[in-house]
Amino acid sequence: MHYYPNPAAGLNVHDVNAAIEEAFAEHGRGKVQMPPKLYIQFEQGDFRTMPAYIPSLSIGGVKIVNVHPENPARGLPTVMALTIILNPETGIPEAVLNATLLTDLRTGAAGAVAAKYLSPKREIVLGVVGSGRQAQAQVSAIAAELSIRELRVWSRKEENAREFCTKFPGITCSPGELREVCDCDVLTTTTPSREPIIRNEWIREGTHINAIGADAPGKQELDPAILSRAQVFIDDRDQAVHSGEINVPLKAGLFSEEQISGTLGDVVLGRKGRRSEKEITVFDSTGLAIQDLAIANIAMKSGNFISLRFP
Amino acid sequence: MHYYPNPAAGLNVHDVNAAIEEAFAEHGRGKVQMPPKLYIQFEQGDFRTMPAYIPSLSIGGVKIVNVHPENPARGLPTVMALTIILNPETGIPEAVLNATLLTDLRTGAAGAVAAKYLSPKREIVLGVVGSGRQAQAQVSAIAAELSIRELRVWSRKEENAREFCTKFPGITCSPGELREVCDCDVLTTTTPSREPIIRNEWIREGTHINAIGADAPGKQELDPAILSRAQVFIDDRDQAVHSGEINVPLKAGLFSEEQISGTLGDVVLGRKGRRSEKEITVFDSTGLAIQDLAIANIAMKSGNFISLRFP
Repeated sequence: MHYYPNPAAGLNVHDVNAAIEEAFAEHGRGKVQMPPKLYIQFEQGDFRTMPAYIPSLSIGGVKIVNVHPENPARGLPTVMALTIILNPETGIPEAVLNATLLTDLRTGAAGAVAAKYLSPKREIVLGVVGSGRQAQAQVSAIAAELSIRELRVWSRKEENAREFCTKFPGITCSPGELREVCDCDVLTTTTPSREPIIRNEWIREGTHINAIGADAPGKQELDPAILSRAQVFIDDRDQAVHSGEINVPLKAGLFSEEQISGTLGDVVLGRKGRRSEKEITVFDSTGLAIQDLAIANIAMKSGNFISLRFP
Repeated sequence: MHYYPNPAAGLNVHDVNAAIEEAFAEHGRGKVQMPPKLYIQFEQGDFRTMPAYIPSLSIGGVKIVNVHPENPARGLPTVMALTIILNPETGIPEAVLNATLLTDLRTGAAGAVAAKYLSPKREIVLGVVGSGRQAQAQVSAIAAELSIRELRVWSRKEENAREFCTKFPGITCSPGELREVCDCDVLTTTTPSREPIIRNEWIREGTHINAIGADAPGKQELDPAILSRAQVFIDDRDQAVHSGEINVPLKAGLFSEEQISGTLGDVVLGRKGRRSEKEITVFDSTGLAIQDLAIANIAMKSGNFISLRFP
């Protein structure tokens, strides 16, 4: 059994995006096993257990990931993760990966795949709401698929938005008001909000939105009226209904499951997609265990490991 | 983060039994979180993902365990396991344990706790059906709670039963026909059978049975008529209905959920139990994630570990 302390180190963003795209294609083909995440509640946070199997890659395993909002005050990340990989032929544990950064990257890659297929243009103004690790991962991953003419960033603290821009010296980048940031071709929202912060009137025709932040019941970032104007794509139906951007509007009766246009897998396979330049499209990302397996699969090929005795 | 390559090495059977008994007590009190196991199917086996949290022990985590019946031909155990332990306050992964032997021990301990409370006598004739690792774990654990006057063992191959007896030099032990082995005070069944192999007419009044083998849909070891004669205790209702000894009789309409007397937690807490010397009692064990956490909790105190860099 191998332990990978820093498996994100050797990864190339193009390879990651391609691996994640292939995982969504297999999901679209119905060729993966992925039961819904299990949630355990601690007093100060929670953790999610995410098993899956991708037969075409011959990889199976489990990601275990926590969310503890008070961690930054203790000097720890809010989200940390481990991925365990089993050999499908014998079931023996083959690898334990530190999956904290891998989680950022695979979520960024899902946004990049969605933007690649659903953006109205190849050269874009990219709006980013939030300035944390996931906002950064989205920009890096999208930059590998589309040409970013301009980057606009909103953060609750403007200094964070300024700091964010320094991470992308090659891209024209400026902090802006929420309304200004929403005036873009591709908008990516990455906050832990529990109320809509993106107003319907700020979103112009043709925009593609990656709604990344909502990943638990009660979370939402978009005015539900945006969802009704848009083609809404999800990563996985069960997970999106339970904890995606659509979960609150569904419970409130402001959105129905019938309004879901399809999955990102459907989009990747060409079954579904943008139908006009004026259409608004939304990708509702909750994060799938198959993304974790797909990125682990390439990280295990390039990363350094420590050998551990097992069994 | 610590890796424990052999955490079973330092464990004392009395401590393990006590830890498992306390886990069942907490389960009986309704003070644990434990969603039903998730199953992933490989071509040549499967694996189960088992998250849980025991607040009173301040321990949360996940056991990941495979079942690959063809492994012994490759020189690997059929069942191998890892347990991942998270710190409830921060969610950081604290430990990865090689849980293969811990799994044997915690299942043996559940049988010992059941026998301690449900056996008709303190000095017993113990019948053992099957001669594998779990059969051995059951005898070792039960021997810490009850005095074993005689051990009777059945295996498909008599030489395996003879070999089994050599592992318990301090106990009078002999191989026997199934019918002879069933003539005992406490019977423990540990086979992967998918058909009843224990006939109703072989079980005399007063017997306590630990039905250990059935842990997946379709598995069963006991004639369903035995269940109808007995008080049936389970470890967890959802798991037992899904994959315990009662799963096949339930589907066949030969047993109903209303016939379940209670959980082992109820027994440990004194709410339920044996009502007469003549009564037959059955403990239907499927194996709970809280058992894995409880044994990990004591193993982490005594075992040797390797420090790994995280995050």
